[in-house]
Amino acid sequence: MASHLNLYKLNHFSMRHGGELNGAILAYETWGQLNTNKDNAILILTGLSADSHAACHDQHDTAGWWEYMLGADKAIDSNKWFVICASSLGSCKGSTGPCSTSPQTNLPYKFTFPDLTLEDIANSSFAMVQSLGIEKLACIIGPSMGGMTALALILQHPNASRHMINIASGCHSEPFSTAIRSLQREAILKDVNFNNGNYSSDQWPTEGMKQARKLGMLSYRSAQEWKERFPRSLRQRPHKPFGIEFPVEGYLEHHAEKFVHQFDPISYIYLSRAMDWFDAYDYKHNSEINPFIGVELESALIMGAQSDILFPQAQQQEMAGLLNAAGCQTQLNITDSIQGHDSFLVDMETYSAIIRNYLDEIK
Amino acid sequence: MASHLNLYKLNHFSMRHGGELNGAILAYETWGQLNTNKDNAILILTGLSADSHAACHDQHDTAGWWEYMLGADKAIDSNKWFVICASSLGSCKGSTGPCSTSPQTNLPYKFTFPDLTLEDIANSSFAMVQSLGIEKLACIIGPSMGGMTALALILQHPNASRHMINIASGCHSEPFSTAIRSLQREAILKDVNFNNGNYSSDQWPTEGMKQARKLGMLSYRSAQEWKERFPRSLRQRPHKPFGIEFPVEGYLEHHAEKFVHQFDPISYIYLSRAMDWFDAYDYKHNSEINPFIGVELESALIMGAQSDILFPQAQQQEMAGLLNAAGCQTQLNITDSIQGHDSFLVDMETYSAIIRNYLDEIK
Repeated sequence: MASHLNLYKLNHFSMRHGGELNGAILAYETWGQLNTNKDNAILILTGLSADSHAACHDQHDTAGWWEYMLGADKAIDSNKWFVICASSLGSCKGSTGPCSTSPQTNLPYKFTFPDLTLEDIANSSFAMVQSLGIEKLACIIGPSMGGMTALALILQHPNASRHMINIASGCHSEPFSTAIRSLQREAILKDVNFNNGNYSSDQWPTEGMKQARKLGMLSYRSAQEWKERFPRSLRQRPHKPFGIEFPVEGYLEHHAEKFVHQFDPISYIYLSRAMDWFDAYDYKHNSEINPFIGVELESALIMGAQSDILFPQAQQQEMAGLLNAAGCQTQLNITDSIQGHDSFLVDMETYSAIIRNYLDEIK
Repeated sequence: MASHLNLYKLNHFSMRHGGELNGAILAYETWGQLNTNKDNAILILTGLSADSHAACHDQHDTAGWWEYMLGADKAIDSNKWFVICASSLGSCKGSTGPCSTSPQTNLPYKFTFPDLTLEDIANSSFAMVQSLGIEKLACIIGPSMGGMTALALILQHPNASRHMINIASGCHSEPFSTAIRSLQREAILKDVNFNNGNYSSDQWPTEGMKQARKLGMLSYRSAQEWKERFPRSLRQRPHKPFGIEFPVEGYLEHHAEKFVHQFDPISYIYLSRAMDWFDAYDYKHNSEINPFIGVELESALIMGAQSDILFPQAQQQEMAGLLNAAGCQTQLNITDSIQGHDSFLVDMETYSAIIRNYLDEIK
């Protein structure tokens, strides 16, 4: 574990679907300074494969996954805000997950890791925030899985934050997205090397992870972007029958190979399933149809891309409608970005401008 | 091979990418009577996994894959038309394909089967049509892969047909569709039981075929249809961790299991690749940008569904625009059907009404 990470220890942490973690770790990074009122804190909840390193900082000068967005004078301005980003509980990026060693048994958890939900990720992150003396966040920002985790947080802790930026997410997964994730999990689980979670660096479920990543890329980008990116004329015959031939195949293979050892297979399937389990409608109080009634957000910015097939814009429309109806002043901004679900990571000019405007106006 | 099929023998059949088939068979079925002028013939070119049995007839009373559409007094009226449908060359449905025994070696072709293109399917089908004494078809009808095959036919044989109905197809595959098909082929090729094509009934690439079918279903239907079909409330915990839990998972599993032994794995990848190879723009004559210039169709009906993600409506718009510009009187009809690419097999009321109207008006 890199020494530049801050570590927060979770003692007797109860999991939503049963079981307890004892001595689990959350790894997190921070940018900027917490003010004396402790009311300028922003929590970033991440997508499935992202880690706490959202941007560079004094202790770690490598660029992060949201480098363009976060830092001094950037859209999420670390001169003004104290920004916190954790690697999700259950992930393999410094926080405790199924591939970590259990302090109780000194063995890797693997399938003895309790069922993981987005609520657990939200609760563990919020406990870490509270450990810093912060009672109420200025803003929660969550893209993709982080957006659903943000909902899990405010639905369980209605006073957790004054504002929210929710990007490329939804109140629950639709069957099409669940189907894609189900096929990703199946590819990993059925890889002969997965071996019920007991894979090793010599016997790694490489093919399953590659397939999962290729399916991921299929759902993260858009048909339109690929059409512009891969002209027909580039196709060429492969060296062996049914080898890589079409430009899009080479692109998928490249991304898949990069991903294989970047993410732990069993963490991947735990996090993936957590996304499919989440449903904001589980929080309908007193038979009300709107789960956000009672949530005390002052305002929210809901963003999406017209080209997103994983969390299509109708889901952001639904979320914004429910929040507005629940009394939260909510802006909806669906961009024309053609990069699909990943637009928030690619079309940074568009996304950062909108986020900058929103954060400039909140207190 | 079922005795109710008609068999046409291809002698010295040259393949577009090189190689020759000698003694290959096309299995086909017919409906209605060829008139004395031999000018009332309709040829149906099929999708990837369909066979020649489009509808029941005197020799075979089982319902076919287009039962609602084809027969006496139906949209494709066998009282008026002489309708022919073949199992595609390369398929495993009675016609010769990579899993057939080569008459030259008495061994299965497997990877010695020459590279297969949609042009080969078109040419072999047209040779069979000509063997029946038909010089010019009244109409070619092609859905999905059959739609691209129909283009391959008229681009190679500009006088082959007076009319065309082209459904859920395009001038070529877009990278998104190629990506889906590439992952399907990869799932089959990498199944340990595939064994370079030397699988047996005991060692069948079941998992690869299941994955391929699940990916197929993902691309054949639409997110909207699944959202309506699978209510959230039906989810239930599986018996084993990461087992089938969500309704859409059960649906995919059911279809995948049904498909495994219905289609030959090596035929599947040959046909799938043929779809990705096809490009109408290969037929640009004399540097003209419009490949259909010179094609002597009198009229065409181009159909699609707004919910199709495999061949999105922009591709049918493109095809109709090019045909119109090339002097063919072309109607475009994009339906509101929510069943995605498969709409032509499901929303039969809508599709059959439009096809009936079109066929009623042509001679």
